[in-house]
Amino acid sequence: MISTDQPRTLSAQLPHAVPGSTVRISGWVHRRRELAALTFLVVRDRTGLAQVVVKDPAALAVVATTPEETTVEVTGTMTPNDAAPGGVEITTPQIRPLTEPAATPPVELWRPALNTTLPTLLDHAPVTWRHPVQKAKWELGAASLRGFRAALDGQGFTEIATPKFVASATESGANVFEVDYFGRPAYLAQSPQFYKQQLVGVFERVYEVGPVFRAEPHDTVRHLAEYVSLDAEFGFIEDHRDVLVMLREVLAGMIGAITEQAANAVDLLGVEVPVVPREIPVIHFREALALVGAPADEPDLAPEHERALGAWAKQEHGSDYLAVEGYPMAKRPFYTHPEPDDPRWSNSFDLLFRGLELVTGGQRLHRPTAYDEAIRARGEDPADHASYLQAFRHGMPPHGGFAIGLERWVGRLVEAANIREVTLFPRDLNRLTP
Amino acid sequence: MISTDQPRTLSAQLPHAVPGSTVRISGWVHRRRELAALTFLVVRDRTGLAQVVVKDPAALAVVATTPEETTVEVTGTMTPNDAAPGGVEITTPQIRPLTEPAATPPVELWRPALNTTLPTLLDHAPVTWRHPVQKAKWELGAASLRGFRAALDGQGFTEIATPKFVASATESGANVFEVDYFGRPAYLAQSPQFYKQQLVGVFERVYEVGPVFRAEPHDTVRHLAEYVSLDAEFGFIEDHRDVLVMLREVLAGMIGAITEQAANAVDLLGVEVPVVPREIPVIHFREALALVGAPADEPDLAPEHERALGAWAKQEHGSDYLAVEGYPMAKRPFYTHPEPDDPRWSNSFDLLFRGLELVTGGQRLHRPTAYDEAIRARGEDPADHASYLQAFRHGMPPHGGFAIGLERWVGRLVEAANIREVTLFPRDLNRLTP
Repeated sequence: MISTDQPRTLSAQLPHAVPGSTVRISGWVHRRRELAALTFLVVRDRTGLAQVVVKDPAALAVVATTPEETTVEVTGTMTPNDAAPGGVEITTPQIRPLTEPAATPPVELWRPALNTTLPTLLDHAPVTWRHPVQKAKWELGAASLRGFRAALDGQGFTEIATPKFVASATESGANVFEVDYFGRPAYLAQSPQFYKQQLVGVFERVYEVGPVFRAEPHDTVRHLAEYVSLDAEFGFIEDHRDVLVMLREVLAGMIGAITEQAANAVDLLGVEVPVVPREIPVIHFREALALVGAPADEPDLAPEHERALGAWAKQEHGSDYLAVEGYPMAKRPFYTHPEPDDPRWSNSFDLLFRGLELVTGGQRLHRPTAYDEAIRARGEDPADHASYLQAFRHGMPPHGGFAIGLERWVGRLVEAANIREVTLFPRDLNRLTP
Repeated sequence: MISTDQPRTLSAQLPHAVPGSTVRISGWVHRRRELAALTFLVVRDRTGLAQVVVKDPAALAVVATTPEETTVEVTGTMTPNDAAPGGVEITTPQIRPLTEPAATPPVELWRPALNTTLPTLLDHAPVTWRHPVQKAKWELGAASLRGFRAALDGQGFTEIATPKFVASATESGANVFEVDYFGRPAYLAQSPQFYKQQLVGVFERVYEVGPVFRAEPHDTVRHLAEYVSLDAEFGFIEDHRDVLVMLREVLAGMIGAITEQAANAVDLLGVEVPVVPREIPVIHFREALALVGAPADEPDLAPEHERALGAWAKQEHGSDYLAVEGYPMAKRPFYTHPEPDDPRWSNSFDLLFRGLELVTGGQRLHRPTAYDEAIRARGEDPADHASYLQAFRHGMPPHGGFAIGLERWVGRLVEAANIREVTLFPRDLNRLTP
């Protein structure tokens, strides 16, 4: 059906075509600009925009009935023109629509800025993501995924795929989704935590990129019911500081991938790419409280404390990143490893990125008796966790890991006011479509 | 806690250490072999095995109370010995357990072959995956994932992450899991099909690797309630043959990654790596029926037909792969594109790999009126699919794609009798743990 005698040229390749040669492009009608003597047709494909000059009456008639967003195939002459975007345009075009005339988009996609409300953006996500600025945001995310995996592949990690159906809401108990699993209840995994630990027993070093599910009952700008978690876990560490060193490598890999593979998106969005220092500055939770003037018995950092600490890290260390270590054990999950010399504190950390929590990580317990104790301390019976505890009874190394929320990471990079702006199809308390 | 004055040496690096130098290894006690004058301690880490020669009474006492699977750190002297595996061993060791003595494994992990029943294998998955043969199977899967992504990255695809919570069980209606979503029903996505199509409208070429959920009510050797789907979808195709060409590139990439990055696993498992022919042979469904002697009005291929076709492809074309195109429209989902000249047949295909269905792919409808018709033909109202249809009303190119089941692919590679053997933590009608 589509003429294949002429291979398709992508808009980014157009400047490299032979002037005067016949070229064929395909894409979406990005914009039609009617002047007195001619119409400019701008076609958008995955690599950018191409300008087509339409003068012939037959072609003008086609353009007149081919509204913005209709997909088209254009065959014409490659013509250098310094005034055209990219220095080239297509002249004497034959234009063939590839579908029916498109409905008018809910927002004007051809305008350089995407000016719309959040509900419009989200309700029409299949169309609004076509805007180059919006698309660029996801491109940062896609590059980050590549960088995450490449960094860990380079460190001898094995990718894993752990089950999303779990038998019990063991990790936190709260905010868990229940599923009708062949007539009995099952739950959706809130994280791959238990499974990635068990697989450290197999592969030593593992990572997973996948969805996690949180039945967040609050409608906030930074929570989703489903998000992409970038999880890593590895064995034979000394303590959580080894985890932080690995996290530093991973973040550098993600930043590197963004810089190298999503340079156009970075430019378009005007993102200030946050260089990762060779060593991420670390502050103990206790000292962090003192620094922000909070009472010494505060069990957690409030958002304003995190912001103040972010500003301090930037000023004191010139760093967009700050690790706060030693969070009180009382506020950490039961598998957290305590500080060896003072078990009130933990061998865990939060990484603040520009004053916002981005990553949680740390060392985990690895001795079976430590698990038995920690589970009993929660008032539970270790026998109820027998499946998880198998790995530990059969020999586990000292280990730890971390989890990065993809959407939160991208949201911080582009300074999104709401995490939903950087999520392809967000899911929350109220939203289940599109 | 762990001595860091001596950096860790991995077992695979041991032959490259300086003879006579002090080395430190870490791993699991794979086996202890007591002889009259000494004990061999074999330590397993993520790169393989290392042999330690224990003669000193103090060290022998430690070994005696450090059963198989206990994690240990061993510091000793790198000593070349042609009789040792890898040509080196560690002598005069100091051995330090890193956890409590491990419980006896449910299967003997040190034996070259893993002889056990399927229930034991699955009930003790956190431990049985440690067996080198079992571990190698997953390594084929992990390499396949890398190959899949690298092939598509090289073809200008963008990775996406689509929601697993969906508002309705639109695609097939059957075998869908229901979730309590903040007090109302939601469903788990059976595939990213609808979303990957919508995102072709944004990125042109997309892929996703992620879990899909099927409430399979039957307990078979090839079905799971949750599996990893490798999905790709792209626009501006001529027809399903373009999809098959892309699939061929992707399979070649997966095979290439296995060959290059999982060579040890291939060797250990004795896998005959299935070379992908430059062009995958294609047979029309109609001719396939005739070839296997089935009635011309059969709507589908039975497993014995697929096996016969697989044998035919091997004999006739020397190919482990065969594409059967043109499946009857009646048996394909509503978004399937018909053959332009005969709408009884579809522009879709199944790819048989060694006589078993591995991939389903094809061209999709892209005109909005075609969707309206197809949905009405199912007795449904297009208005009920408004969210999905947005993308088509606002301009979509001719497009298509495919989906590969990861576990099925690996299962075929290693000729597993049951797909559960190659799934890290399988989920089915009866199994929700470990």
